[in-house]
Amino acid sequence: MNPIIVAVICGALGLVLAGFMARYVLKQDQGSEKIREISAAIKEGALAFLGREYRILAIFVVVVGIILGVIPMLGWWVTLSFVFGAVCSGLAGFIGMNMAIRSNSRTAAAAQKSLNDGLRVSFRGGTVMGMCVVGIGILGLSVMYFAFHNSLDFLKIIPGFGFGASSVAIFARIGGGIYTKAADTGADLVGKVEKGIPEDDPRNAAVIADFVGDNVGDVAGMGADLFESYVDSIIATMALCMMAYTATMVNPLVPNTETAYFLPMMVAAGGIIASIIGVFLVRVGEKPEMGALLNALRRGTFSASILAAIFAFLAVYFLNADIGIFWAILAGLVAGVLIGESTNYFTSYAYSPTRRISQSSQTGAATTIVSGFANGLMSTFPPVILVAIAILVAYKFAGMYGVAIAGIGMLSTLGITDATDAYGPVADNAGGIVEMSGLPPEIRERTDALDSLGNTTAATGKGFAIGSAALTALALMLAYSQAVGIKPDVISLLDSRVFAGVFIGAMLPAVFCAMTLNAVSKTSFTIINEVRRQFREIKGLMEGTARPEYGKCVDICTGAALKAMIIPSLMTIIAPIIIGLILGPLALAGFLLGAIACGFIIAITFANAGGSWDNAKKWIEKGHLGGKGSDAHKAGVVGDTVGDPMKDTSGPSLNIMIKLMSIVSLVLAPVLIGFPGLL
Amino acid sequence: MNPIIVAVICGALGLVLAGFMARYVLKQDQGSEKIREISAAIKEGALAFLGREYRILAIFVVVVGIILGVIPMLGWWVTLSFVFGAVCSGLAGFIGMNMAIRSNSRTAAAAQKSLNDGLRVSFRGGTVMGMCVVGIGILGLSVMYFAFHNSLDFLKIIPGFGFGASSVAIFARIGGGIYTKAADTGADLVGKVEKGIPEDDPRNAAVIADFVGDNVGDVAGMGADLFESYVDSIIATMALCMMAYTATMVNPLVPNTETAYFLPMMVAAGGIIASIIGVFLVRVGEKPEMGALLNALRRGTFSASILAAIFAFLAVYFLNADIGIFWAILAGLVAGVLIGESTNYFTSYAYSPTRRISQSSQTGAATTIVSGFANGLMSTFPPVILVAIAILVAYKFAGMYGVAIAGIGMLSTLGITDATDAYGPVADNAGGIVEMSGLPPEIRERTDALDSLGNTTAATGKGFAIGSAALTALALMLAYSQAVGIKPDVISLLDSRVFAGVFIGAMLPAVFCAMTLNAVSKTSFTIINEVRRQFREIKGLMEGTARPEYGKCVDICTGAALKAMIIPSLMTIIAPIIIGLILGPLALAGFLLGAIACGFIIAITFANAGGSWDNAKKWIEKGHLGGKGSDAHKAGVVGDTVGDPMKDTSGPSLNIMIKLMSIVSLVLAPVLIGFPGLL
Repeated sequence: MNPIIVAVICGALGLVLAGFMARYVLKQDQGSEKIREISAAIKEGALAFLGREYRILAIFVVVVGIILGVIPMLGWWVTLSFVFGAVCSGLAGFIGMNMAIRSNSRTAAAAQKSLNDGLRVSFRGGTVMGMCVVGIGILGLSVMYFAFHNSLDFLKIIPGFGFGASSVAIFARIGGGIYTKAADTGADLVGKVEKGIPEDDPRNAAVIADFVGDNVGDVAGMGADLFESYVDSIIATMALCMMAYTATMVNPLVPNTETAYFLPMMVAAGGIIASIIGVFLVRVGEKPEMGALLNALRRGTFSASILAAIFAFLAVYFLNADIGIFWAILAGLVAGVLIGESTNYFTSYAYSPTRRISQSSQTGAATTIVSGFANGLMSTFPPVILVAIAILVAYKFAGMYGVAIAGIGMLSTLGITDATDAYGPVADNAGGIVEMSGLPPEIRERTDALDSLGNTTAATGKGFAIGSAALTALALMLAYSQAVGIKPDVISLLDSRVFAGVFIGAMLPAVFCAMTLNAVSKTSFTIINEVRRQFREIKGLMEGTARPEYGKCVDICTGAALKAMIIPSLMTIIAPIIIGLILGPLALAGFLLGAIACGFIIAITFANAGGSWDNAKKWIEKGHLGGKGSDAHKAGVVGDTVGDPMKDTSGPSLNIMIKLMSIVSLVLAPVLIGFPGLL
Repeated sequence: MNPIIVAVICGALGLVLAGFMARYVLKQDQGSEKIREISAAIKEGALAFLGREYRILAIFVVVVGIILGVIPMLGWWVTLSFVFGAVCSGLAGFIGMNMAIRSNSRTAAAAQKSLNDGLRVSFRGGTVMGMCVVGIGILGLSVMYFAFHNSLDFLKIIPGFGFGASSVAIFARIGGGIYTKAADTGADLVGKVEKGIPEDDPRNAAVIADFVGDNVGDVAGMGADLFESYVDSIIATMALCMMAYTATMVNPLVPNTETAYFLPMMVAAGGIIASIIGVFLVRVGEKPEMGALLNALRRGTFSASILAAIFAFLAVYFLNADIGIFWAILAGLVAGVLIGESTNYFTSYAYSPTRRISQSSQTGAATTIVSGFANGLMSTFPPVILVAIAILVAYKFAGMYGVAIAGIGMLSTLGITDATDAYGPVADNAGGIVEMSGLPPEIRERTDALDSLGNTTAATGKGFAIGSAALTALALMLAYSQAVGIKPDVISLLDSRVFAGVFIGAMLPAVFCAMTLNAVSKTSFTIINEVRRQFREIKGLMEGTARPEYGKCVDICTGAALKAMIIPSLMTIIAPIIIGLILGPLALAGFLLGAIACGFIIAITFANAGGSWDNAKKWIEKGHLGGKGSDAHKAGVVGDTVGDPMKDTSGPSLNIMIKLMSIVSLVLAPVLIGFPGLL
């Protein structure tokens, strides 16, 4: 049997589980009339956003598809592959978000019964997302394989699929990221700061926009992001497979070319089965203790990692590949788990780094900012060392192919890690719905507990996403340099074009972050002005006798966020093309390496600084150092607000940016072969 | 005549001008009894700090000197060279600071007469510093040349001089930087925020420590920093000269090996003469208008740049070198000037980026921080592109040798740029003295005007220092790879050790900044506690009937800052050694490139974010957006406080860090030749 059939079966099993979970969630009670009403408003806003976003994306996909088709060295099969990748990515995001906007009200209703019920509904909602991403990913790649594996141009066509997925991801992540943080900041600044009303208060016109943001940013955006990592890492490995075969003819890592294709698919397929088993191991006991809940989730992900390693070993063994490849996979898997742990250490208030930030809040906002930022910078140490070790181990045992497959190893348990990740925004939304519909405080306490658990798993997931993005982008860069025909001995680090490329590449993530941070600020000002206008013009709003125009806010935020996403997204796609054309393919390889290294550093710094500010504030809110309302708390709120766009917009977008620039280069490789650069 | 004699004469002329300027300043009136008293306290504190710092440095120099001596591949001549470099660097810092602590009171006194008199005294004080740095630098290198140029080991011995200079620089910059910002923050947080007394109020126990900080950080630290850049760029060029000669035998860039040594010295010597002429062109008219003052300074530096280019052309012409070398020098010079301009654009409130930060202050501290940080990130674009262009042009016309000599081109006008830079802290100190001695407000207004002018020149100077540090470090990295015998075709960007090295290198500047930021926070808490204690325990202090114990604060700050400087400084020296020994010389080259690229980006971001927060606050203080005391102003103060350690401690220390790691590698090159790495 063709092993790809096994991959198809595993992917289908993932989707079956998703369907099963979706049925469970949809059968649940939707709660009171009030809850349904709020949920309907969120649903409407989220779908409106996604509709308008996808329309812009469609134009983009058509234009780029035509460009790819008319370039003689690429052609229409690349276009087809590109469009198919874009559709798959869009689909994963769409299904995930559709599930999320249906799970939130049901989680709110379930939380009225017990904490446990709330967790079950929201985690199952998240599982739909995780399983859809891996299932659609592996099925899409299998289709690509069956359609084109006999074509001589297979290695030219398949990167198009990744390019399609990456393009959708960058727009979705940036657009959704800007939306969610602008709405959040806007709602907070007018509501909490100016008017002194609580968070998620129904009088605040931006509150529905804020809930919509959680769905379009943290669910749809993240789904597209992880889908991209998943398929790109497999594509990079496939693209490097020919190389691994031919370069090691004397003592080949794999017995034949086919195996080099099959192996990444089988490792990914094994990961899906491991994730499915892991999901079933997340059994929550009857006691609704936070520690127990967290342990349940960890047991699931940890078991999935061990199983994924075992399956990877079996794949290597039965496909008669070199055992070195297994060590490479294991290196990636272990590094991923440890990066997650280090992220947790630097961002959870259970540990000293975050508590130190809480303490510096006592001397004001400035010291809060400096200590949080220093913490973010310091936290780059473990992930970088871990990735460097994984690279060195993987390369030693299996060359460049090893580096690429280490990335797949890291991502193999994506099905379950994404599930624990996607459940967070659902719980967050549920909490907001509980607040808005005026349910008793003990229900809100339950959803807060779920939200808090979600923050912990989100932090781990974020570190994992960054680490895998760096490895994937590196693998793509290596694949690019092979595809463009760069012999290792011509791409010298001492070549001026190469190091000029490294410098320019290192600068781009910084400029990109500046753009996305500014976009959030600009969009949030639009929201602020609208909320202020409504408080001014709608009579009785503050007194609670009139209702704000939620839809107006959602609409304004949608327009502003979509407008703001275009420039940074296009810049990411165009920059490698410009470098490649002007300075040539060698400079482009240097450029990618500089961008990956510096983007990795900035992404970790932003994610962990943001995460630790958030939790430092929460630590104070738990009654420490004066508790809510104290000066320390005010300073903590400033830190949290600064960290929000860093950790939820700019940081995650960087992951996509480095992968996208690398895959654009890989797609363009046939054009750049032998091209000296215009200068 | 040996051209090095010309260099000696030019260096001596620089020192003569310094002596002339020093005599002028020392002849000036020292002001009232009160001014003398305050000045004496500052002098005492500054000298005590430098004394203790130099004692620690002496131990370090002795230990490292012995290690260098006993390593068989290096030997005692390297030790001698190292010690000599350290002494020269220490001397430049010591003279500069001694002049600064004598100029401050005289500037305060002169400002009582007129703005013009104030500017003349402070600028001449700064000129002493600038001329000492270049004079001592070129004389020290000339001594090295005459002593060792016939030795076969010349290229092994001379990097020792740079290593000595760099080692002193890192301790001085970090130690001084931590001191100055900790004292500043500590004084502000207790004085302005907690007690509500004005800045520089004599009741604040930390106020003298704050003044001392300006001298030990912004003068002595900066002197050592620029001394390092200056000599390191010349050393890198010399080290690459053999290569330039042999690699281009068919069509050599220089007619013989000697010329390759002479040329960098002559370019630097020409720059000194250009700077001296530039200093004399800084003529201030009778009208004390700020615009006119700024124009006077710019006329001086701009003329010096043109003259330096002409002298460089003459040097290339008369030494019979290839004209391509001149283009390389010019590329560096032009890039330096343009980087200064771009820094000015991003940090001056005359332009929109900084004004936008002022505007975001209206919505609170969080938006101020985000917009300032985004501005800093965005500002990396022009300097990186300019440096990349300079690299490409220089390499095209003169190979690696061209890249190195472009660095000298950028630094050739250091004599005058450092003078305009060093005058700033003198004016700042003078302002503080005026405030503390209770002189009438119009005098304070004059010193404020001088201070503000100093901030503008400092911003330009900072950009220039960062750009030149990146070029110098890159030249040292190239020299290292030549010295260690790396052939271009073996150091492939696609080698796992090389790219793992790039990743680790890119992370180190981030961790280094985290350490220095934390060191400032930690030290400032020590000060805060001491100032609070004095307010609590000294009766009548708040009422002004008792005096605080200034000396106690100075002493505590000195101890804490010196303790905090040790770990980051040592890490910088040890990191490249560890990488070289464990992963081998190829990984070390990648490591250096990663550190230079990422360090460059972070240094610009920190410097310009910090500078723009500072000026955004000043813009509000000039009466815009509500002026002093408004909510926007409070938010602006938070931005300024966050930016302070970034722009004055961590950012500038990064310049030294990347140069130091590169020169450590160059010094160690003989040890690493043919060494495969322990792993």
